[in-house]
Amino acid sequence: MTYGHGDDTYRYPGITMNFSSNIFPNPHLEELEDHLRRSIHLIRNYPEPAPEHLERLLAQDYGVDKEQVMATSGATDAIYIIAQTFRDVHAFCVNHPTFSEYADACRSFGMQEQPDAPLCWVCNPNNPTGETYNGTFINQLADNHKFLIIDQSYEDYTLQPLMTPQEAVRHGNIIQIRSLTKRYAIPGLRLGFIIAPAPLIRRLKAGQRPWAVNALALEAGQWLLAHHHRIIDDIPAYLNEAQRLRDALNTIPGISVRHTHTNFMLATIQPDTAARLKDHLARNHGILIRDASNFTTLTHHHFRLAAQSPQHNDLLINAIKEFQANR
Amino acid sequence: MTYGHGDDTYRYPGITMNFSSNIFPNPHLEELEDHLRRSIHLIRNYPEPAPEHLERLLAQDYGVDKEQVMATSGATDAIYIIAQTFRDVHAFCVNHPTFSEYADACRSFGMQEQPDAPLCWVCNPNNPTGETYNGTFINQLADNHKFLIIDQSYEDYTLQPLMTPQEAVRHGNIIQIRSLTKRYAIPGLRLGFIIAPAPLIRRLKAGQRPWAVNALALEAGQWLLAHHHRIIDDIPAYLNEAQRLRDALNTIPGISVRHTHTNFMLATIQPDTAARLKDHLARNHGILIRDASNFTTLTHHHFRLAAQSPQHNDLLINAIKEFQANR
Repeated sequence: MTYGHGDDTYRYPGITMNFSSNIFPNPHLEELEDHLRRSIHLIRNYPEPAPEHLERLLAQDYGVDKEQVMATSGATDAIYIIAQTFRDVHAFCVNHPTFSEYADACRSFGMQEQPDAPLCWVCNPNNPTGETYNGTFINQLADNHKFLIIDQSYEDYTLQPLMTPQEAVRHGNIIQIRSLTKRYAIPGLRLGFIIAPAPLIRRLKAGQRPWAVNALALEAGQWLLAHHHRIIDDIPAYLNEAQRLRDALNTIPGISVRHTHTNFMLATIQPDTAARLKDHLARNHGILIRDASNFTTLTHHHFRLAAQSPQHNDLLINAIKEFQANR
Repeated sequence: MTYGHGDDTYRYPGITMNFSSNIFPNPHLEELEDHLRRSIHLIRNYPEPAPEHLERLLAQDYGVDKEQVMATSGATDAIYIIAQTFRDVHAFCVNHPTFSEYADACRSFGMQEQPDAPLCWVCNPNNPTGETYNGTFINQLADNHKFLIIDQSYEDYTLQPLMTPQEAVRHGNIIQIRSLTKRYAIPGLRLGFIIAPAPLIRRLKAGQRPWAVNALALEAGQWLLAHHHRIIDDIPAYLNEAQRLRDALNTIPGISVRHTHTNFMLATIQPDTAARLKDHLARNHGILIRDASNFTTLTHHHFRLAAQSPQHNDLLINAIKEFQANR
């Protein structure tokens, strides 16, 4: 694993605004939390060794067969299981900058990074850039590689068209990763899943440990899917607010924010470093941002932000304005 | 993973007595459950990517350095991480019958089972037999293998002396697995850890995914360790009750129960099969036992039981008596 991921609030006492995690900021989790409080006795028993009940609900919800679904302990568990299963292809490729765990997982299984390797990873929308890739590009990747892994963890946070589960399973060599952590804004519970053709799912499940998904994550996923709960809502308004945040930051001297198709965005600061900006905002404003300098190909000047509420976004804009004015 | 693990209550509606899981039957979990209900908002944030806070508390509690501890998502996660890390030694050995996941994890990483292989696994107390191995035997194993993995998940459920954490880290080639699931009777949360010399812990951590341990499991572990809570108590009385159960079952014609040093025991039934006994007890008595026929070297006649309360044990004894009398 890479050290220096976002959402490191545990390092900074006094954080009140967390721009470092790409999760919807004000999710409607009260009903789920009530349900989990009522279900806390589930800690007393083992969960299902293989989470078949949840997989059936996911198959129904996403319109595929249950043999085409595998639930995991978060999308990151999915990434490591995929790298483990396909380690014998020996080489992988990614489009930098992107989520560091694809390369970390592959390297931990002895794989080498090479252009045009058999196993290709793509994150769509891409972390940390916020860009989305169109269908033509994705189809070309699928044609040019033995296996294409598409991490669609952020799919609920964009209005751009992405590959559907039905399209994915038709391809034969595509493995899609999805994140209930992101869809339902529950990163503490660890819940993700994979959609792929049944023969690939069988290979992936062969390497999975029993009881991989804990009982409260299973209960949350089952309850949310069965009740068709909407936890994150009005994505268009949220994405408009993200654009407003980007536009406002782009007016600050020394700050440049890339175009984004989602709720988070990649920025640079000059002449100072992202690490110093992060430290300043945490200590003086209770604001946490993501120092993005540990993404391969990025620099010490890169940081990542996910839009929060308009009020919090304004506080961030003013804090960065002040930081740039006073240096 | 092997299919057919115990605690499969989800398959049998109406189970009121669960002898199939080797967990202390009436743990004092009310305070922990209250604390988790108050902490349910932790689902909204990522846990620490690497569970360093919990590892510091574990190091203190077990009297080793924090560099000698690695927290995992249950003991099973530990087993798979160990197999993954040492897959390049290519061969493993176990003492059958034992917990099936050692062999399953090793095989999923392409390793072969061989006598006297470099990587040796031992479960102490052993699942499913309930026997413990003495220090002389364990030291011989450590001398005769490149790496010795000792799974002490059930150590809190025996009065026999076992290898201490301090002894384990002194050896240099011993890796101990422990289970907070078992110590605190919280199998739904998934929480275990590894104790080993620092160089081995570093190798193991290099292959671990971030956010492997969910936020509520971390919170439970940290709270329990910080408050020195005793969740399972009066183990001597519980083990006496296990011996009473064994003695009573051994008086039933066709039933034979092996000697045990812990709370669970391995039994055989004749002339019927364990599967038929399990099915009968589940349907007619709300009692769940563990069909042990899928342990390598065991037969269709083997089943495993963990002692419950005296009242429930009496109901089990009578139910098996009746089953044997009426065949």
